[in-house]
Amino acid sequence: MKTYNFSAGPGVMPEEVITTIKQEFENNERSHMSIVEISHRSKKFQNIIISAEQKLRQLMQIPDDYAVVFLQGGGSMQFEMMPLNFATQHQNIAVLDSGNFSKKAEEAARQIGKNTTILASTKDQHYQKLPTLPSNFDASAFDYLHIVTNSTIEGAAFHQANLPQTSGRLIADMSSNILAEPYNVSDFDAIFAGGQKNLGPAGVTVAIIKKSWLAEQDLTGVGPMMRYQNHIDKQSMYNTSPVFSVYALDLVLSWVIEQGGVAEMHRQNLEKSGKLYAYLDQSDFYTAPVEKTARSLTNIVFTTGNLERDKAIAQQAEAAGLFNLAGHRSVGGFRASLYNAQPAAAVDALIAFLQKVEQNA
Amino acid sequence: MKTYNFSAGPGVMPEEVITTIKQEFENNERSHMSIVEISHRSKKFQNIIISAEQKLRQLMQIPDDYAVVFLQGGGSMQFEMMPLNFATQHQNIAVLDSGNFSKKAEEAARQIGKNTTILASTKDQHYQKLPTLPSNFDASAFDYLHIVTNSTIEGAAFHQANLPQTSGRLIADMSSNILAEPYNVSDFDAIFAGGQKNLGPAGVTVAIIKKSWLAEQDLTGVGPMMRYQNHIDKQSMYNTSPVFSVYALDLVLSWVIEQGGVAEMHRQNLEKSGKLYAYLDQSDFYTAPVEKTARSLTNIVFTTGNLERDKAIAQQAEAAGLFNLAGHRSVGGFRASLYNAQPAAAVDALIAFLQKVEQNA
Repeated sequence: MKTYNFSAGPGVMPEEVITTIKQEFENNERSHMSIVEISHRSKKFQNIIISAEQKLRQLMQIPDDYAVVFLQGGGSMQFEMMPLNFATQHQNIAVLDSGNFSKKAEEAARQIGKNTTILASTKDQHYQKLPTLPSNFDASAFDYLHIVTNSTIEGAAFHQANLPQTSGRLIADMSSNILAEPYNVSDFDAIFAGGQKNLGPAGVTVAIIKKSWLAEQDLTGVGPMMRYQNHIDKQSMYNTSPVFSVYALDLVLSWVIEQGGVAEMHRQNLEKSGKLYAYLDQSDFYTAPVEKTARSLTNIVFTTGNLERDKAIAQQAEAAGLFNLAGHRSVGGFRASLYNAQPAAAVDALIAFLQKVEQNA
Repeated sequence: MKTYNFSAGPGVMPEEVITTIKQEFENNERSHMSIVEISHRSKKFQNIIISAEQKLRQLMQIPDDYAVVFLQGGGSMQFEMMPLNFATQHQNIAVLDSGNFSKKAEEAARQIGKNTTILASTKDQHYQKLPTLPSNFDASAFDYLHIVTNSTIEGAAFHQANLPQTSGRLIADMSSNILAEPYNVSDFDAIFAGGQKNLGPAGVTVAIIKKSWLAEQDLTGVGPMMRYQNHIDKQSMYNTSPVFSVYALDLVLSWVIEQGGVAEMHRQNLEKSGKLYAYLDQSDFYTAPVEKTARSLTNIVFTTGNLERDKAIAQQAEAAGLFNLAGHRSVGGFRASLYNAQPAAAVDALIAFLQKVEQNA
């Protein structure tokens, strides 16, 4: 039976990438020189990490004033590194709370001694709408504004067209929709993304840093591993890179380029998610509760309105080869993650399954 | 041609482990559910991470008062996490400087605002001896003493028999000889090791933490990802684990158990390194400069006394299938890393090659 994996991450990777990884281990089964056994300073790996940076630059059209670094620790580590490196003047960051990961970032900044202000939150609306930047927002009182472009758990997204317009600095957590839709990098002062959703396996995190802004910071007391500048100066080799994860990331980036880049991914993602939302919207049985203009292309959240029933249906889906459809444990319901590597056939299979359940209900 | 990889890390892993990894990708080439695509919260991965912890506990006979966590960021991140979590009372750590990585740890602690004292250093002897704890050392003035059990670059080791005897707390960086020889965990208050030497691939770091000591700390201002307690409370799943690296680590731990555990690894490592040291010591052409009682079992450092010639010979070795024999770029010469997974045949091939060079010199 064909199986599909709707995990919110780590999640599905392109089949071609999995085949290449398999071949790497096949070819090096007895050489003692497979990708997990070579030095991060070997030529083979140096070429990989340089190539990965170049491909990401190409795919996102990253301007020269931005550095790209591959780090460890996931988005959660960025919740600390960003304020440590950039909340140095006012010691104060502004947050638009559009979901669980906005709150986590805000809490982490507070815990390391920064002041934080939640400018607006849609928590009371279960994050089914996007928070709006207050018209009286005074950017000059803050080091930066923090946003999450795509709320992995709740399924709302700031697309390029509805980004908050701030006169100040803007940092975005793009963990769950980087490369899924286009963003103008120059609209941001820093961007980060954990690898395990749209970029590759867990274990590598991408940070894109405006160098001229970083140069203004006083980093007294910040440890060497927490300083972006150290990683930039050593081209992401300040210490041992997570070699396998960067290798797999590089393969995924090649695959995205071969597919036609972010524009083509965006087209496919609009099509995949559009098909699913259209089905859910016409259904009397399921509801997709996120406001239409704010809907995520990558994490499609829906429910029958009965969390116990949702759970049973998600369980039942596994027998049909459809895995990991349960919503995040904090919210329940369903979540179908349609990252770049998710084939269109997965959406068709999902809709067919949901229809059958609806008909039998 | 048979190839051998003497890289100091990431380095050779057991052939059986590489085969298992290959099979994992073979079996899941079309399932969208390979080890790099499954959620860190999936049952499959939960079982892996729990099993890895149990195996490490078994192998090192870790007492119940010690927590085991799997983290990211390598030893370098531990250079910051350890002082952040444990240098909280005196804000002062003592260091025995036995090589490059002792200095790095000391510098990182200083950079985050802690006081540091280098009690003794063998830098002037090119780290070919071990520093000795001064007889007037007053442990009560420091939060802890930091040591590196095995200097990966310079090749000197504090074996269990020559550990410094302190009445205070002791933290050890065991990155390059964990599981290569036995240590009494209860002689330490915390231990850490980057994965990419004796444990598996890069991208995972092990920390072993005395819980009762951690409970005494005031961690105001320390970020959530930098607190061991958060990782302990969530069984290393505070955020997304580096799934592949933990998976491969678990396979390596199984392999070590199958081989006969740390005692058997130690026996093999004594044999492998002993054979190489014996050859080098009897040779008039090569010198192993590290003092005999302090010699590393895992990183065997030697030279012909002429760094240019060493470089040429290391290059020549590649043609004979012997890779990564050049010493670290900071010291030159040769370094043959003989981690657990290094087969005895690699040492025989190396000695045969070195003999041939010597005969033709």
